Amino acid sequence: MSYNTFGQSFRVTTWGESHGPALGATVDGCPPGVPVSAEEIQHWLDRRKPGQNRYTTQRQEADAVEILSGVFEGRTTGTPIQLMIRNTDQRSKDYSEIAAKFRPGHADISYWQKYGIRDYRGGGRSSARETAARVAAGGVARAALAQLAPGLSLRGCMVQMGPHRIDRARFDWAEVERNPFWTPDAQAAQDWATYLDGVRKAGSSVGAVIEVVASGVPAGLGEPIYGKLDTDLAAAMMSINAVKGVEIGEGMNAAALTGEENADEIRMGNDGPVYLSNHAGGILGGISTGQEVVVRFAVKPTSSILQTRRTISTSGAQEEIITKGRHDPCVGIRAVPVGEAMMACVLLDHILRDRGQTGGLRGHIGG
Amino acid sequence: MSYNTFGQSFRVTTWGESHGPALGATVDGCPPGVPVSAEEIQHWLDRRKPGQNRYTTQRQEADAVEILSGVFEGRTTGTPIQLMIRNTDQRSKDYSEIAAKFRPGHADISYWQKYGIRDYRGGGRSSARETAARVAAGGVARAALAQLAPGLSLRGCMVQMGPHRIDRARFDWAEVERNPFWTPDAQAAQDWATYLDGVRKAGSSVGAVIEVVASGVPAGLGEPIYGKLDTDLAAAMMSINAVKGVEIGEGMNAAALTGEENADEIRMGNDGPVYLSNHAGGILGGISTGQEVVVRFAVKPTSSILQTRRTISTSGAQEEIITKGRHDPCVGIRAVPVGEAMMACVLLDHILRDRGQTGGLRGHIGG
Amino acid sequence: MSYNTFGQSFRVTTWGESHGPALGATVDGCPPGVPVSAEEIQHWLDRRKPGQNRYTTQRQEADAVEILSGVFEGRTTGTPIQLMIRNTDQRSKDYSEIAAKFRPGHADISYWQKYGIRDYRGGGRSSARETAARVAAGGVARAALAQLAPGLSLRGCMVQMGPHRIDRARFDWAEVERNPFWTPDAQAAQDWATYLDGVRKAGSSVGAVIEVVASGVPAGLGEPIYGKLDTDLAAAMMSINAVKGVEIGEGMNAAALTGEENADEIRMGNDGPVYLSNHAGGILGGISTGQEVVVRFAVKPTSSILQTRRTISTSGAQEEIITKGRHDPCVGIRAVPVGEAMMACVLLDHILRDRGQTGGLRGHIGG
Amino acid sequence: MSYNTFGQSFRVTTWGESHGPALGATVDGCPPGVPVSAEEIQHWLDRRKPGQNRYTTQRQEADAVEILSGVFEGRTTGTPIQLMIRNTDQRSKDYSEIAAKFRPGHADISYWQKYGIRDYRGGGRSSARETAARVAAGGVARAALAQLAPGLSLRGCMVQMGPHRIDRARFDWAEVERNPFWTPDAQAAQDWATYLDGVRKAGSSVGAVIEVVASGVPAGLGEPIYGKLDTDLAAAMMSINAVKGVEIGEGMNAAALTGEENADEIRMGNDGPVYLSNHAGGILGGISTGQEVVVRFAVKPTSSILQTRRTISTSGAQEEIITKGRHDPCVGIRAVPVGEAMMACVLLDHILRDRGQTGGLRGHIGG
Repeated sequence: MSYNTFGQSFRVTTWGESHGPALGATVDGCPPGVPVSAEEIQHWLDRRKPGQNRYTTQRQEADAVEILSGVFEGRTTGTPIQLMIRNTDQRSKDYSEIAAKFRPGHADISYWQKYGIRDYRGGGRSSARETAARVAAGGVARAALAQLAPGLSLRGCMVQMGPHRIDRARFDWAEVERNPFWTPDAQAAQDWATYLDGVRKAGSSVGAVIEVVASGVPAGLGEPIYGKLDTDLAAAMMSINAVKGVEIGEGMNAAALTGEENADEIRMGNDGPVYLSNHAGGILGGISTGQEVVVRFAVKPTSSILQTRRTISTSGAQEEIITKGRHDPCVGIRAVPVGEAMMACVLLDHILRDRGQTGGLRGHIGG
Repeated sequence: MSYNTFGQSFRVTTWGESHGPALGATVDGCPPGVPVSAEEIQHWLDRRKPGQNRYTTQRQEADAVEILSGVFEGRTTGTPIQLMIRNTDQRSKDYSEIAAKFRPGHADISYWQKYGIRDYRGGGRSSARETAARVAAGGVARAALAQLAPGLSLRGCMVQMGPHRIDRARFDWAEVERNPFWTPDAQAAQDWATYLDGVRKAGSSVGAVIEVVASGVPAGLGEPIYGKLDTDLAAAMMSINAVKGVEIGEGMNAAALTGEENADEIRMGNDGPVYLSNHAGGILGGISTGQEVVVRFAVKPTSSILQTRRTISTSGAQEEIITKGRHDPCVGIRAVPVGEAMMACVLLDHILRDRGQTGGLRGHIGG
Repeated sequence: MSYNTFGQSFRVTTWGESHGPALGATVDGCPPGVPVSAEEIQHWLDRRKPGQNRYTTQRQEADAVEILSGVFEGRTTGTPIQLMIRNTDQRSKDYSEIAAKFRPGHADISYWQKYGIRDYRGGGRSSARETAARVAAGGVARAALAQLAPGLSLRGCMVQMGPHRIDRARFDWAEVERNPFWTPDAQAAQDWATYLDGVRKAGSSVGAVIEVVASGVPAGLGEPIYGKLDTDLAAAMMSINAVKGVEIGEGMNAAALTGEENADEIRMGNDGPVYLSNHAGGILGGISTGQEVVVRFAVKPTSSILQTRRTISTSGAQEEIITKGRHDPCVGIRAVPVGEAMMACVLLDHILRDRGQTGGLRGHIGG
Repeated sequence: MSYNTFGQSFRVTTWGESHGPALGATVDGCPPGVPVSAEEIQHWLDRRKPGQNRYTTQRQEADAVEILSGVFEGRTTGTPIQLMIRNTDQRSKDYSEIAAKFRPGHADISYWQKYGIRDYRGGGRSSARETAARVAAGGVARAALAQLAPGLSLRGCMVQMGPHRIDRARFDWAEVERNPFWTPDAQAAQDWATYLDGVRKAGSSVGAVIEVVASGVPAGLGEPIYGKLDTDLAAAMMSINAVKGVEIGEGMNAAALTGEENADEIRMGNDGPVYLSNHAGGILGGISTGQEVVVRFAVKPTSSILQTRRTISTSGAQEEIITKGRHDPCVGIRAVPVGEAMMACVLLDHILRDRGQTGGLRGHIGG
């Protein structure tokens, strides 16, 4: 068995390698009648596109999406939507070194061990280029969410670069669009620019923490026990390249709280329940409560660095390697739109799944 | 759609409520010919069983498992294995308060919002009692792993209680079986005993971090891109009651590392690749490398506490609530065997999945 | 991988062997709030129950169903429903013959070849006793259909026994409940009684064709291309023990028709489209049209007969066998309620699936 | 939920509409290391290609397949294989009539009722053009079968056209490649040519029965109870456009047999069990026995005919319609390679699934 599909009702299958002819996403289960255009999807792809500033890889990809099926006269028909992105910047570089040596921290060795064959060019299937297909699919999900859950909005940001966290007191969503790091802390944006220049010049790399927040999420989404909303968000984020940790709401820090601190108290407001805090990250028992859904994930530092590392070759020889090429000193930056796309896909999937079982039934609270 | 099944090839569907007649697990996809007995499964259930010391709920459940199908003359037949545990200690207590009021931090309100009906007795389906079924299924998975991956061993421990972390220098697996907290740090066990007594007497509760480690895991397990081994471990652990964060290897801390620190260097050893560190937690690109697989998860503090909390009623009235009853001051303690069970199920599932696609093919490394 | 689950949104996993302690169905995905009782499910089980007349096996099973989970105060909660039926008539007979010899026409040899182990007692997992679990699950599906599609009704009947077909001119649904064969043709019921007595006395057996018809099926059910309504009906019926053929509408005979005969003409009626014929069996392009959904399936003759047949033993010796025991001369009789149950499950599943994608959207026809 | 994927371990998702830019198949789960080339897949596509003789639609499509991913240096890598076929003959014809009127026997009305929107050009997603994607995927399955089950071969033929069946006494596989109907009966080929010319000239159409046979199928394939080999074959064939009935082995005729006729007797041969007949079609209890696997399916007559039929319009008006255009008088002809492709996919899927659970374990028969 192989598994290149995520989602149950809104199902996205991505395909393609870094240096093959094309990559894309086969999207099945999108509701019919949703306005979708290549232009709209392109908007989201352009946010993720590499080569936009000196902090991301200089690989130049147009990343132009084509819709090959499933959309008729500007609206989805309920049939599979094929989104294809041609690979245009496949440099005819010399891959002989990475063909023969396993790059530490990369999936070179594990793909080899699993499959006995690998497309080593640029990482092949394990390349972060695969995330372009996720972002394209996320564009379709966003369009459907706009129809099905009009009040829902979602956005991501970077809240930590290397050891440097943002100051939550300075958190401002408006800042996110104003700096190359998508951080909501203007001061952090300045500090990180200097810091990351240093990292880049040293031929090193650094990790990051991304936070994605959705507001206006209907209560009642999530399928206990094994299709909980937080379970699926954890899986979605952990499936992104280089992610090593996922947190919902208070996250790992929840361990350090007491029960009275952690259990968010409830009051009755004019429009329904109001919570006095959100340690839960908007999810109780795997089901959304109507509060903001908050997920964070840690991206490890880029494994491709300009420093010599010890490794072995496919023939078992002891080797050293320096990974030259066009790489990101902080691959976490480009993970922001990817995290948003995954959130969009998971929320849409759960809206459809919930509709399929409960019909959107909600227990009445109030007189 | 509802989703009470996890796994793809080794599929476990749990069923049952806290105070219904019984609960259990329907296990499908277990290989045939595996020696399985109720006694063996009972061994693992007994580890999780409540009421064993003053740090866990005083609810007394025999938690005796019956095998109703799928095992013939002591061996699995390849057909579904039904594991049933009767609920025996269903006290005829007065549930009127929690029927009418939503307990903060519990799934009471979210189940109500989703389904418009809930079995409020003891939390119903959202009760941590469901994890008994996971542990029973994990017993079957362990038996199958003993056949299919004889060198594989897995064990869990508690590495943090409330804000108190273990001292990694004192880490000793042998300690784990000697204290009620399953912690590998003997000194921590003593300190936590005092600490948790205080928490309990205050009617409060506290969270924990659990670590589960598997050694002898074959290289090559995991199905990129959306059935990665770490993706499935993240989902498995996040699906456990009260879990708010999951980490693989370096986890959230990976963000703070540099590329040269994080990418584990490789040397060729006598029996194959040897890694000089294990920041990756044994997984690269979603595929196991043969190193120890390391996963951690944070359990939030028990939401049922003996302190007054504000909430609302089903009729929308402003209320206060104190959750009396038989509860754990640190529910994380009983999560240790649950985490182990989930690890066992995920690893077995991936061994079967890998066999289904690659036939256990491995790329040759060496001369 | 093993596969004991059918359905996508309404998922039924059956478990249990003919002579184990119990068998049952784990039902996941049932909508919440549906009135369900053991009595109601028992009603359907009693229809299928063996030992009711001289034409079915004399095995006496109470087939009493217990609901172990998922129903609270008489209504479904949206959580898994566990339906258990204890096996009570497990005679301590001597199974040594069928343990050692493969009965021709039975799954003895194929289970052995697949699994290398089999519960040979009464056929184990391959026994038609498994269909009791289907009927129980079908009872839940019927209850949910009563809520979600109030105008829908479904019923089955036998339209052929051995080579003898009913006379369609005498078709009368009211007859079905008046004879032991569930045939709508009163004359056929008489003729078949004589015929089957002869078959039984000869120690022989005979096949049958069952027809299941659902009326009031909403238009729009079915998920092209691979989850078509007819695809899923074909799979559902073919999965029943001893079934060798499945037909939708005109079925195999469609090959012999011309395009002008086969394409059902459409007129606009007061309440929507009206069709002038129903060769399609209510399904076009895999989607229901609102006409009656008509499915037929052929059940092969019972393989257990009182006549000597040549076979081999597990040790490869040439053998002969007579299958003594309590068997049905026409197992097709008891397939009628099973076919109904499968129809109920498939239709409910598709109502939920359709709701999950389209929200029950329907294109407007008319001014 | 929508469902455009078939298979569990070898998963094929087809996408695309008749008159969109392209259509194709996303193939996931193919084992790694399998030699696959566009040329080889093209070979199978060419068999299905329309416009080859006067008995099939005159639509001219190159049906040239491109492999966009999953194959590296001529071998599969274990990652998703994207097969794309550009639509080249999308005539800019006037679709206004079928946009407004529902063609009887076509899926026009049911797609409209389900989705509220449809790509009416050439049938859109419901067009038989989708089967090109199946044939392409089948080409990959065949390549993998050649590696995993070297002795396995499969072939299809037409055994009935309209009311005219072949004479089984004249059955000769070698004939199949010598006539435009893929029939194994040379005399039938001559008779049918005359017959079909008459049908075509009358502007009529006619159905057919296709038989697909696989020999060398390993014993032990199939996953009872709901993933039986025959269940999945029934679903696979019923999912093909215009199919109304599916038979395994004796099929519908099994109803007319007695138990002693139907239960294939077994003898021990030099190389294992030998059966004295094959009424079962090579499958017992849903599991292959090692005999030839035999499946038949009935294709209804082409619904597009040059004769006036009554219908309604989207606005509910009473209308008449003649479906002009490039259509097949017997669409069943082109269903032969499609049936073969489905058989190939199902068998490969089951080989992988079986390997995933049992590891290809087989019970020993013999001394």
